[in-house]
Amino acid sequence: MNGEIICIGTELLLGDVLNTHSAFIARSVAPLGINIYYHTVVGDNENRLRQTVKQSLERSDIVFMTGGLGPTYDDITKNIVYSELGLTSFIDEVALQKLQSYFDKIGRPMTDNNIGQVMRTENSFFFENDFGTAPGVCVTQNGKTIIMLPGPPRELVPMVENKVMPYLMKLTDRVLYSRYLRYFGIGESALEAMLSDIMKVSVNPTVAPYVDNYEAKLRVTASSDKLENAKKSVDIMVEKLLNLTGEYCYGVDVNGLEDALVKLCTEKAVKITTAESCTGGLISERITSVPGASAVLDMALCCYANSAKIKLLGVSPLTLELFGAVSKETAREMALGALKVSAADFAVSVTGIAGPDGGTAEKPVGTVFIAVAGKDGSCNVQKLSLGTRTRSRGDIRFLASSHALKALLDAVKE
Amino acid sequence: MNGEIICIGTELLLGDVLNTHSAFIARSVAPLGINIYYHTVVGDNENRLRQTVKQSLERSDIVFMTGGLGPTYDDITKNIVYSELGLTSFIDEVALQKLQSYFDKIGRPMTDNNIGQVMRTENSFFFENDFGTAPGVCVTQNGKTIIMLPGPPRELVPMVENKVMPYLMKLTDRVLYSRYLRYFGIGESALEAMLSDIMKVSVNPTVAPYVDNYEAKLRVTASSDKLENAKKSVDIMVEKLLNLTGEYCYGVDVNGLEDALVKLCTEKAVKITTAESCTGGLISERITSVPGASAVLDMALCCYANSAKIKLLGVSPLTLELFGAVSKETAREMALGALKVSAADFAVSVTGIAGPDGGTAEKPVGTVFIAVAGKDGSCNVQKLSLGTRTRSRGDIRFLASSHALKALLDAVKE
Repeated sequence: MNGEIICIGTELLLGDVLNTHSAFIARSVAPLGINIYYHTVVGDNENRLRQTVKQSLERSDIVFMTGGLGPTYDDITKNIVYSELGLTSFIDEVALQKLQSYFDKIGRPMTDNNIGQVMRTENSFFFENDFGTAPGVCVTQNGKTIIMLPGPPRELVPMVENKVMPYLMKLTDRVLYSRYLRYFGIGESALEAMLSDIMKVSVNPTVAPYVDNYEAKLRVTASSDKLENAKKSVDIMVEKLLNLTGEYCYGVDVNGLEDALVKLCTEKAVKITTAESCTGGLISERITSVPGASAVLDMALCCYANSAKIKLLGVSPLTLELFGAVSKETAREMALGALKVSAADFAVSVTGIAGPDGGTAEKPVGTVFIAVAGKDGSCNVQKLSLGTRTRSRGDIRFLASSHALKALLDAVKE
Repeated sequence: MNGEIICIGTELLLGDVLNTHSAFIARSVAPLGINIYYHTVVGDNENRLRQTVKQSLERSDIVFMTGGLGPTYDDITKNIVYSELGLTSFIDEVALQKLQSYFDKIGRPMTDNNIGQVMRTENSFFFENDFGTAPGVCVTQNGKTIIMLPGPPRELVPMVENKVMPYLMKLTDRVLYSRYLRYFGIGESALEAMLSDIMKVSVNPTVAPYVDNYEAKLRVTASSDKLENAKKSVDIMVEKLLNLTGEYCYGVDVNGLEDALVKLCTEKAVKITTAESCTGGLISERITSVPGASAVLDMALCCYANSAKIKLLGVSPLTLELFGAVSKETAREMALGALKVSAADFAVSVTGIAGPDGGTAEKPVGTVFIAVAGKDGSCNVQKLSLGTRTRSRGDIRFLASSHALKALLDAVKE
């Protein structure tokens, strides 16, 4: 089935708002065998929108449209679609009553503008909107399907996930099942090279590589007429992929390094702590972004100044003087010091030069030391060179935090 | 001048990569009077790409194309454009020599594929690529201008900013000048309402509102034939806007709350520190994302567990027992404690319930207390209710960190 996506909105056209809908919809429907061949953004202009709709009906079996369903005067999507399909619209009395009782509940009057939201035609039905007033609409005519969705992401995303996808699975007679493998420390292209034989022939399940914040991710998705069959073939493929790439894969079905770390620590009842310099709190921020992190992280110290490293972490002034704040020795003392201050089983420390200033010939921007200390007295330090011509301060800080999380994860695993 | 943007790439079409180019280009060229009426994404398919190019030449004066300029076999953009314009291409010998010397320098052989990158036609010229091998191309024919740009953002963004924009300013005989006003604590719609009279009539300079991480931002842009004229009219408009909205505006030409804070502290030689609970290091992370933050932030403490609040910040166990960790009293003691531990002039503390779990009827998810303590003994605490049906843990944490930065900024200002 061939499809396309049309997103409507002057704010998208002007670039004031980024269009995330097209990518989201395309990625969602691809495993159902719906081939998206065009994304288009147009404004609220009636003429241009009508031309775009007309063209889409000529070349696609299914058209996804977003935006232009609200109550304001420039929301003309539905009228144009209905007239291009040659259908007459009427008020859906059930939807109208629901809308009326919603306005009664919030104590605001329903205006005539709102009534446009509950207009539909023959061969159509609504997708209920759990996060707004404008319902989505599905209309089929002459073998073409048009799905109109609300513009705000908070309304569109759950509608697609919870209402549209189940409908499309029925329509295409397919169910979907996906799993994710996550890699750190190996590039997407190296990963693809390792897996090229598998990826070339994998049609169902498909194996799709993504790059995500300097990590590589594989999505394995199968479609089938039965969920258990889809699951089975995904599981077999995941097994195969892990056999080939297991040493680089840090987690299956986890939401990133911080999620894998919090899960593992919770499972093992291990407590961790952090002592950050150049990352400035980013590591603890990432860890605590995971719900339930409070059970594994009791405190986190960010010691930017040398005086703070001495006072809070007990780093020796002599070490700082002899080797500098950005050194193997300081990283080691920071991690050991954090372990002593806290009640944690493992501590990770980071010290480095994030730039743009502060680099020297000996220690250029991007020089980072990471130490992981364990209660058993172990302490491993690694030196990283993360600077490149195009990496920003933010890039270097993020990468340093990922390396620190990975080092901690490896230590806890052992 | 009417324009459109065509982005080429299967990875965009499948939604594996988000299309940020269309918005970036549209936003960049709008103040030059170039009206973008369509964004299109198509894959590497020759037929569909050709149709899209043909259509764009019928309806637009200027067409921006991204992607499909590299050396790989599916990079067909240029050939299609040249043939649709009826132009014959040839090798640009100067560009070829540059490319050859680049490959000599990196010690890798130049393949035949690379030669496609330096093919151009009559009435065309290259935009040099400072971050990759594929140059951009500008070709004009029959009153139409086509600008072809490389796909990777790290190549495209600087090429647009440094090469394409100066060319377009010459083409349209305009120079641009912009300034930004930033607001926190007032919504975009409230801001628009306050400024509706100005915004309706503002054609040059234009006043465009943006929403950016729960902040409102106004971009004031003027175009003129002379830079000093553009500057002058922008400055007059900024003055007008500040007269109307100055009390909500926290900074002009700054990159967010953290940037405004670090700048102000640097200016006033003020040191700050943070004591975070539910934000988990996000506040210190945001502060240290600003280059030069080391001069104003000497340490930052993240005390998730009660034991850490007691041990590191000196919060009284009785306070925690009587009022709870999420309370006015605990926030106050955290801020005062942080001030004592550090050598800072001001401390901010945050304690709250970020969710998704942990909320109660009395203290629902989103309840956050923020305290700012000063060396003069002052300490102000505010209670916020940041929870809504659709806000995630991440949203609440981010908003809490913004409120904390704003409170600190206000305190340092006084």
